[in-house]
Amino acid sequence: MIKFTHKEQQILKQIITARRDIRGNRFNKKEILNELLNSTNNAPSVGFSQPWEFVVIKDNDKRNEVYKEFEKQNKKAKKIFDSREMYKSLKLEGIKESYLNIAVLYKKPKSDILGQTVQKKMGEYSVVCAIQNLWLSARSYNIGVGWVSILRPKKIKKILQIPKEYKLIGYLCIGYVDTFLDTPELETLGWEKKKSVEEVVRWV
Amino acid sequence: MIKFTHKEQQILKQIITARRDIRGNRFNKKEILNELLNSTNNAPSVGFSQPWEFVVIKDNDKRNEVYKEFEKQNKKAKKIFDSREMYKSLKLEGIKESYLNIAVLYKKPKSDILGQTVQKKMGEYSVVCAIQNLWLSARSYNIGVGWVSILRPKKIKKILQIPKEYKLIGYLCIGYVDTFLDTPELETLGWEKKKSVEEVVRWV
Repeated sequence: MIKFTHKEQQILKQIITARRDIRGNRFNKKEILNELLNSTNNAPSVGFSQPWEFVVIKDNDKRNEVYKEFEKQNKKAKKIFDSREMYKSLKLEGIKESYLNIAVLYKKPKSDILGQTVQKKMGEYSVVCAIQNLWLSARSYNIGVGWVSILRPKKIKKILQIPKEYKLIGYLCIGYVDTFLDTPELETLGWEKKKSVEEVVRWV
Repeated sequence: MIKFTHKEQQILKQIITARRDIRGNRFNKKEILNELLNSTNNAPSVGFSQPWEFVVIKDNDKRNEVYKEFEKQNKKAKKIFDSREMYKSLKLEGIKESYLNIAVLYKKPKSDILGQTVQKKMGEYSVVCAIQNLWLSARSYNIGVGWVSILRPKKIKKILQIPKEYKLIGYLCIGYVDTFLDTPELETLGWEKKKSVEEVVRWV
């Protein structure tokens, strides 16, 4: 059994703290990947079901289609945030500039899963844990990841011809970057305030 | 900007690989916590909304009530897995033995959230990322975390008197442990096979 040291705890802390949500204008083009996918495959999963699948997208035509869907949905979002002028100037995806895109899928189970008999969402949550593993691993390799959520999952599934037993959980843009910001961009810009631990913890 | 080294990448990899879902029989009693909660607070969140809240439960009466709910739901689960004799012998929670329990909540937003205008689940997924940060940080401190999912969220909310604008995402049992298994227990027992990366990745 591995026992981690104070120094190793500090390294994980640094990686967690230094992770950023990366937008397109900071992507370069280079290769990686196997280590990152390995780290997803060691994520926790309900009943050891490992219900994740990854579609790695290099094809430019597909990416252009995904980008068009983003533009369409972001046009609607701009209206929603009409009263906050800043929204229009935010870069919210890196679909075309990144080295590659990954669609992260949840494969719906065909039979009962241990631990998922009451809370049906547990399978999806396992997939999210896998994404977070990938995100931290990427950061440790100094590689940027951006999660693009202004997309209709059904439309993305159609573009990628994904069968209906899958659910799209996340759409990621991945690649080497010029820089990682010291502070989340939305914090610096004052879009939202950083919460303190005290604000989000209660004792019973 | 921090650039991580090969050695640091290997440490994160070790932490991710050595993380285990911990059941009650391996919990001791000791203290930690602030570092773990700090790591959750540095998780990614849609539109920097940080929609997570944590209820830390030490009270034994509350825990007993949660345990009763587990027993009730697991009785039903045992019937579902009637054909797999092994299920009955599995230890699936550490509610009473662990040092403390944490209910992890999603606070539903009162107004529109950047990035959540199309995919309403993004807020919940941010909370799951926070749980995975906590889980890895705990492992780096050689502290065990078990996610108990055989519970009805509504019942847990009632026991803990959680207002209705919150959704229960995860129920965690946390504490020092005697050992971390080298391999996930459900893999060793043959409940599910470990998937290879090749099985879960496709290229487009």
